[in-house]
Amino acid sequence: MRKVAIVGGGATKCGKREASWRDLVQEAGKAMFEGVNNLSPKDVDSLIVGAAQPERFVFQAHVAPLVAECLGITPRKVLARAELMCASGQAAIRYAWACVASGLSDVAVAFGVEKMYMPDMAEAQTNMTCVLDREWDGVNGLSAPPFFAMTAQRHMHEYGTTKEQMALVSVKNHHYSTMNPLAQFQKEVTAEDVLKSVMIAPPLQLLDCSGITDGAAGVVLVPAEDAKRYTDTPMYIVGSGQASIGNAIGNLSSLTEWVPLKMAVQEALKTAHITLDDIDIAELHDCFTISEIMEYEAFGWCDKGKGGRFIEEGQPYIGGRVAVNPRGGLLGCGHPLGATAILQALDILQQFRGEVPKGRHVEGAETAVAHNLS
Amino acid sequence: MRKVAIVGGGATKCGKREASWRDLVQEAGKAMFEGVNNLSPKDVDSLIVGAAQPERFVFQAHVAPLVAECLGITPRKVLARAELMCASGQAAIRYAWACVASGLSDVAVAFGVEKMYMPDMAEAQTNMTCVLDREWDGVNGLSAPPFFAMTAQRHMHEYGTTKEQMALVSVKNHHYSTMNPLAQFQKEVTAEDVLKSVMIAPPLQLLDCSGITDGAAGVVLVPAEDAKRYTDTPMYIVGSGQASIGNAIGNLSSLTEWVPLKMAVQEALKTAHITLDDIDIAELHDCFTISEIMEYEAFGWCDKGKGGRFIEEGQPYIGGRVAVNPRGGLLGCGHPLGATAILQALDILQQFRGEVPKGRHVEGAETAVAHNLS
Repeated sequence: MRKVAIVGGGATKCGKREASWRDLVQEAGKAMFEGVNNLSPKDVDSLIVGAAQPERFVFQAHVAPLVAECLGITPRKVLARAELMCASGQAAIRYAWACVASGLSDVAVAFGVEKMYMPDMAEAQTNMTCVLDREWDGVNGLSAPPFFAMTAQRHMHEYGTTKEQMALVSVKNHHYSTMNPLAQFQKEVTAEDVLKSVMIAPPLQLLDCSGITDGAAGVVLVPAEDAKRYTDTPMYIVGSGQASIGNAIGNLSSLTEWVPLKMAVQEALKTAHITLDDIDIAELHDCFTISEIMEYEAFGWCDKGKGGRFIEEGQPYIGGRVAVNPRGGLLGCGHPLGATAILQALDILQQFRGEVPKGRHVEGAETAVAHNLS
Repeated sequence: MRKVAIVGGGATKCGKREASWRDLVQEAGKAMFEGVNNLSPKDVDSLIVGAAQPERFVFQAHVAPLVAECLGITPRKVLARAELMCASGQAAIRYAWACVASGLSDVAVAFGVEKMYMPDMAEAQTNMTCVLDREWDGVNGLSAPPFFAMTAQRHMHEYGTTKEQMALVSVKNHHYSTMNPLAQFQKEVTAEDVLKSVMIAPPLQLLDCSGITDGAAGVVLVPAEDAKRYTDTPMYIVGSGQASIGNAIGNLSSLTEWVPLKMAVQEALKTAHITLDDIDIAELHDCFTISEIMEYEAFGWCDKGKGGRFIEEGQPYIGGRVAVNPRGGLLGCGHPLGATAILQALDILQQFRGEVPKGRHVEGAETAVAHNLS
C-alpha cells in the first residue's frame, strides 16, 4: 500500500449563499487549483465527489461527471460519487485515498459539495427525514435533531450532563469560527445566548445545532513520493478507521455508547502507530453540542460521562488536553454535508502550514485527526 | 496491488416486483450468502452499495448503513454508497476492488439495489430528468431516451444504420433472457414485434429500450490468495478501465463517437495484458439497442459504423465473433440501475462455472468483460 499525501486544496465560503450548486462547485474548484502548485486539470486522473443528497436539495442526480465537467477534469482512472450522508466528504477522501494507496490513481481529487438552502425550507426539512431509516424511523418523525435530542436527554439522565455544559461547546466553536473567513457564523455567542435561543428538539436549542449550509471544497491526494512536486508542505495520511453498526434507532443497544466510533478510533490509532497523546488537533463532528461531548469520551480524552466536565474545564481549547475544532467546527462553520470533511482536512493542512489566524492556530501541531458521524 | 477474486454472489429476480426496497435487499443478501461457501456476515469487513437514486425512487437516502443492517453486516473497514447513475453497481465493484487491492479490506461486498417502480409512474419519469445536467439539459426535456434517440438518428444518418438492425439487438437479448430465470422479460420477440412496439423517442420504440426494473444483487471480493477458502471456482479481476469526458450534451463533440468508452476499453485491455481476441463473453450496456451497436464499434469488434452489419451477420451471438450479452442484457433482464453491473458480474461467474442453461452457455469461456455507461 502506497503512502498518500494531501498536497493542497480550496473551498468556498460557507453559509446561505446567493450561488447555485454549479457556482459552488466552480468557486471551490478554482480555489483548489490555485491552492496547489504545478497542478493543471489534465493531471488529475481521478475524482471522487462527496455529496449527501443533491437529488433532493437541487434535483440533480449523477453529480460526479458534472463536477468533473465544471472543474475541467477528464477522469481516466476513477470517477464516482461517494455518499455516506453527513460523512459523504469523508467517504470521498477514503475512496480517493484507496485509489492512490492501491496504485490505481496518481492524482486524485476528493471533492465535496452541498447546496442545502432551498426556496421552500419546509421541503428541506422533509428531505432530512429520509436520512435515517425512512420506513421505521423517518415515518415517525425521526430526523437528526430529535435523534441527537434523545441522545442528549439520555446522557443528561445517565451522567448528569447539563445544558450549560453543552452550551459551552457552542461557545468554543463559535469563538474559533469568528477567526475563520470561510465560516458561516462569524459572531461570538455566550452560554446565555445558547440557552435563550429557539428550542429545536428538547434539550437542544438553535445554537446547539449546526446550520443548514451551502458550500463546496476539494483537496488533492497524491502518492507521498510525488508530494514535493506540488508543495513543500504536504500532509500525510498515516492511519484511518471506519465502522458501522447500522442505521435504525431500534437496533441500537444504547444511545450514549457509540461503539462504532470507539472501534474507528482504535483502528485509526493502530494503523497510524500513534497514541491519543500524539494528537494535537481534533476536527470532530459537532453536528450538535452533545455530539462533541460524546466524542471527547469515545476518543478517550476523558472518562465516559465526563465530557461535560471536560469542556467546563476548558480542556478542548487550544492549550488544553487537545485542541478540538479550532476551525470552528460544524457549529461555527456550518455543515454543508458533502463538503464538511473536505473542509476539515483543508483546515488541518492550513494549521500545519501556519496559514490560519493566530487566535486559532495550534502552534507546533504535527498530528491531527478528522472525524465524521454519518 | 493485490490481485482480487470474486468468489460468489446472489441476486433477486428482476422486474416489477411486489416487494419493498428493503425486501429486495434482504432477498439478494440471502442469495448472496447462500452463494458463497464458508462466509458468514461477520467475516465481511467492507460494504459498498451501488444505488443510483433511492432518494427519489423510495425517498430513502443514506442507504449504505441500511443495507449493512439488512444483511447483518457490521463493516469495520469501509462502508459507503457509490453512485454513478446507470453504472452505480460498477462503481461499487470498482471501489470494493480498490479496497481489497490496496490491502485495506480482506472481504468486501459490492452490492447493488434499485426499486424503480413507483406508485406514480409520472413521478418516476420526472425523476429521470435529473440524471443528465438538470439546469442545461434536463430542463429542456432531455433524459436518457431522447439522448439515445438523437444518437441513433445521427448513427443512422452517418452510417446508414437501420431500425431493422437495431431491432435485431433486442431480438438477440430477449432470446437469451428467456433462458435466465432472473430476467424481467421472458418472452422471445421478433424484429417485427420491436418495430411495431410503442414509439418512445424516434427512432427508438418500446422494445428498443431497457425496462423500468426492481432488483438487487451482491458479489463478494477477496484477495486472490484467499479465494480458495470460499470456492473452487473463483473469478479473477485482471484489468479494468474507466473514463469520462463530462455530462452536458452541449459539451460533446460528437454523438456517435464515444471517446471515453474507447479509452476505458484500451485501459482495461492494457492492464489485463490481453487483446480483444481473448474475450469470450462481453456483458455490454444495452440500455437501448443503439448502445450495443455503438459498443461493438467502440470495443473494436467491428469498424466504425459497421455495428448494424455486425448484428445482422449474427457476430455477437454465441458462436460468433464474441458472445455479447448471453445473460439477456439490459433489454432482456431489465435495468435496475444500481444492481445491473452486479448482475452482469454474477452471470459471468456462473458462465465460467457452467451454471447457466445450455442455450445461453458460452462453453469453454475463460475471459469476459463487463461494461457500463453512466
